[in-house]
Formats: sequence, structure tokens, C-alpha cells
Amino acid sequence: MFEQLGLIGCGLMGGSFALAMKRAGLVKRVVGYSKSPTTTERAQQLGVIDAQAPSALMAVSNSDLVLLAVPVAATEASLKAVRHLITPNMLVMDVGSTKSDVVAAAQRTLREHISNFVPAHPITGREVSGVEHAEAELYSGRQIILTPTDATDLNQLERAEALWKALGCRVKRMSPQAHDSAFAAVSHLPHLLAFAMMQSISMQPEADDYLSLAGPGFRDFTRIAASDPKMWRDVLRSNHEEILGQAALFREALRELEQAMQADNDQPLENLITAASTLRAKWRMGAQRRSSGG
Amino acid sequence: MFEQLGLIGCGLMGGSFALAMKRAGLVKRVVGYSKSPTTTERAQQLGVIDAQAPSALMAVSNSDLVLLAVPVAATEASLKAVRHLITPNMLVMDVGSTKSDVVAAAQRTLREHISNFVPAHPITGREVSGVEHAEAELYSGRQIILTPTDATDLNQLERAEALWKALGCRVKRMSPQAHDSAFAAVSHLPHLLAFAMMQSISMQPEADDYLSLAGPGFRDFTRIAASDPKMWRDVLRSNHEEILGQAALFREALRELEQAMQADNDQPLENLITAASTLRAKWRMGAQRRSSGG
Repeated sequence: MFEQLGLIGCGLMGGSFALAMKRAGLVKRVVGYSKSPTTTERAQQLGVIDAQAPSALMAVSNSDLVLLAVPVAATEASLKAVRHLITPNMLVMDVGSTKSDVVAAAQRTLREHISNFVPAHPITGREVSGVEHAEAELYSGRQIILTPTDATDLNQLERAEALWKALGCRVKRMSPQAHDSAFAAVSHLPHLLAFAMMQSISMQPEADDYLSLAGPGFRDFTRIAASDPKMWRDVLRSNHEEILGQAALFREALRELEQAMQADNDQPLENLITAASTLRAKWRMGAQRRSSGG
Repeated sequence: MFEQLGLIGCGLMGGSFALAMKRAGLVKRVVGYSKSPTTTERAQQLGVIDAQAPSALMAVSNSDLVLLAVPVAATEASLKAVRHLITPNMLVMDVGSTKSDVVAAAQRTLREHISNFVPAHPITGREVSGVEHAEAELYSGRQIILTPTDATDLNQLERAEALWKALGCRVKRMSPQAHDSAFAAVSHLPHLLAFAMMQSISMQPEADDYLSLAGPGFRDFTRIAASDPKMWRDVLRSNHEEILGQAALFREALRELEQAMQADNDQPLENLITAASTLRAKWRMGAQRRSSGG
């Protein structure tokens, strides 16, 4: 049980965390700060936070739990702004989708307080943003990746793990580098491709006609293209080396399929699609088992 | 009201059509044929068809409505097998995802019966296949594209239009060529990219680890990669010229995003993502209006 959550960034991720913590009875009071005062105001109106802080530093003051829920490129400035008030027992976490850059920013700014910081990435996959969409259920049944370093205090790491489990999450520990490689493949590249898909249609004079014909397959394929531009700008830039590597492999796979589409016989294309289809179906069954089995 | 539906191909599309027609009280009796006798048997057990035909020709015999629901490459052989029993009042339709090739196959095989044939493409976007997944609701609220030619009998076209509307569909007429260009962009390319995405992960030794971390964004992005391999083999091969053209535009869009990921400043990437995100959100709102407005 925490006395006070200091929330820096009252958007979808931060707001949902505050709601989930309250519903689970894990925190008594939430003090929130957002760069935009209207967001902070709105968060209080919606009952997401109990009090508005005039600065990130004031949100941290007297809190025993701090969640940084800002676009990853804002991590360093945010940590710098609050480090003076980090106390030995305070648990500090982020929710950024990239981890090497977040850990590097923490190492540059937090000094001896680095032991209090547990980098976290909840896999929620929501395309909407803003405190209006915040909901206590957002993290329930989801996977959380924690990427501690040698400097992370083990006690804080265990507190973090217990907290996310109490919110209904499956917790996994990884190194920041392994995290960024894996998520380049299964999250960042899909987002990049979905953005490119929309961009590629918008380049054509027939865009509106084409879009008026798009059905449920297109809807699901492009859902993540509606994601928050500032957040994804930061993710794609921060992890660009890994993502470009994944994009190169993707191009190879696409080229192979294109060649098979024009081959003399049906078999090569059917084999490639069958492999893709089988892998997707197998993954889906495994994912269902994982999320129901806990 | 039709007396007898002759169903050639008792999979997801054909089976769902039979169930929808029965539920709407639009047909008295369904006679079905599938290449695999176990499929036909299963369709009867599930109440999708009332009687099994030993051949496609026998399914057409005495029917006043015929639906061809086979992979598009099997269209020509199927039409050839049944053309002798097509009668002047019979309405014949297909449900193929490509239309130029289907129309060409009909022109080569049907001769004077070509006027009875109304090429149709229902946009259902389901990734599952097989008669086990057939459901009367599949076509409800969906868009159907009809691609008549100069040879199509106007009376048959109007019957087809009324039939799909009675099943709850929005009907649109297009030329086969315009259909194939548009669906290369909003359906065939997304499927190709989803297959390539799975393929690109499977090429890597870390595939299983990566997939174990994939979340809801990946789930929706790759849903269509689980689609029926034989059906999509035919679609991609049949419409490969249009699809390769769309893939080239997609590569351009991807390249532009990749360059922006590495630019000196944030703005170009943010602008591209904002454009993609805005277009996706705008499309979704329009799609909701279209499907609720009828």
C-alpha cells in the first residue's frame, strides 16, 4: 500500500495507472502533473487524480510512488526536474515503450537515486490517447516488462513486481537491450508499417475512393496507425537502429513473396502464405493460453 | 424468393450465404457441393445445406440461384463444369476477391449464359475459414461490390442487388478493373504485408521469444495473416500487377518514414505520423457513419 502516487503525465497510460491503483486499494492519494494545465485540470475533473501539482517536482514531493508517463524523449528532462526530491524509500517507474534510452537518461540524471528507478513497459497496445480514455482496466491481463540494471535496488524491483501483479499483470524481467530488440520486431515495426500503409494510400489521387471501400481487414491492420504521433515519433527515433534492422528483414520477406506471386507455379507462394498463416494461428493459440493461464 | 440455391463450395463464404438466405426466408432449399466430400458432409450435418450434390453440375440442376464460392483460380473450371445446366432465369454469382480474372473466366466459358452471371465480392474481412465458422450474420452490415459487364442482364443485376440488400448489405457497382485497383490498395496489399510480417519474424532465431512478447497491437495488425492460404495464393497471383504497383508505393512511403526516423530534427517524422494517424482516425469515423447510416 502506498500513501501517495506522484503522477507525471496524466494521459492514457498515467491516468489508467492512477485509476487502477485506486480501484485496487493500493494508493491513498494521487497528485498529478501534466505539461498542459488543461490536461491536469481534466484529470482532476474525471477523478483520475486527487490534486493538481504546479510542477513535476511538486508531484514528487511527499510521494512514496512516482510514475513517469510522458513521451520517452521527455524522460531525461522530467527526471532532472524531480531528482532533488527523490527519497530513499521512493519507488520511481516509467511506462516508456523503449528502454535503452530511458535507462541511459536515468543513468545520466539520477546519480545515487538510480537505485530507486525501475524501468517498466506495459504492453497495452491501445491506439487512443488522452486522459478521457483512461480506464482502470487498461493494465488488467497485460504483460509488463521490467528492465532493471545492476544499479537497481532489489527491494524496489520486488515492490514494482508485486504492484503490477496486484493490478492483474504478468511481469517479465529483461535487459533494456533485449527489450528493445524484441519490441522493434513485434511492436515498433508493425506501427511503422501501419503508418506507411496509410501514407501510401494518401499519396494516391484515388485515396478517398479506395478508403470508402476498405473493410474489417483494413480496419484491424491499420488500427495502430491511429496511435499518438508524439509518443511514436519518440519511440521510432529512439530505437531507430533496431527498427531499421527489422525493416530490412521485412523487406526481404516482402520481396520473396512478390517473387512468388509471379512464379511459374502456385506452390512457392502457397508455401510462404501457409507458413505465415500457421505461425500466426499458433501464436494466437499460445497467446490465449498465456493470458488465461496467467 | 428462390426455390433452390445450388452452392458450389461449402466453406465460410458459401456456408454463411446459405445460412443467411435461409434465415431471411429467401430460399426454400439448399443443395451443396464441395470438392472434398467430408466438407459437403459436414455442411449437411451443420444444417448449412439440405442436400449433398455429387458434382457441381448436380448442384446447379433445378436451382434458380447458384453461388460459386471457391478460390478464384477454380472459377473457370467450375463454370465450365456447370454451364450446360444454366437456364435463362437462373441467377449465377461468385464471391471472389478479384474480379477481372473472374469476369475473363466467365467470358471464356459461359457463352450465351454470360448474361446470367453477376460477379460479386462481399467485403467480410474474416481470417478464419471452413464451414465450421459459417454464420448467418457474416454478411450483415457489410459492403458488396457487384462488377457487371455490358453482357450482364439488367434484370439479373437487379435481382442480385435486391438479394444482397435483403441480407443487410450495402451494394455498390464498379467495373472489374476499378474493383481490382481499389482492393489491391485496401485489402490485397495489407494481406501481403501481414504475411511478410510473420515471415520476417520467422526468419529470425529469436522468433519464439519475440512472439511471446507480442501484444494486442501485433494481434490486430497480423490477424489477416491467418487467412486461408489457398484463397490468398489465388488472389495475390491473379491481381499481382495491381498489387505490385501498390507495394512499390508502400515501399516509397516506408522509405520516407525511415529517413525521417534518422533526420536531424523531430518534425518530419512527427508530421508523417500525424498525417497517417489523422487519416486513419478520419476514415474510422467515416466507416462508422457509413455502416450505421446504411
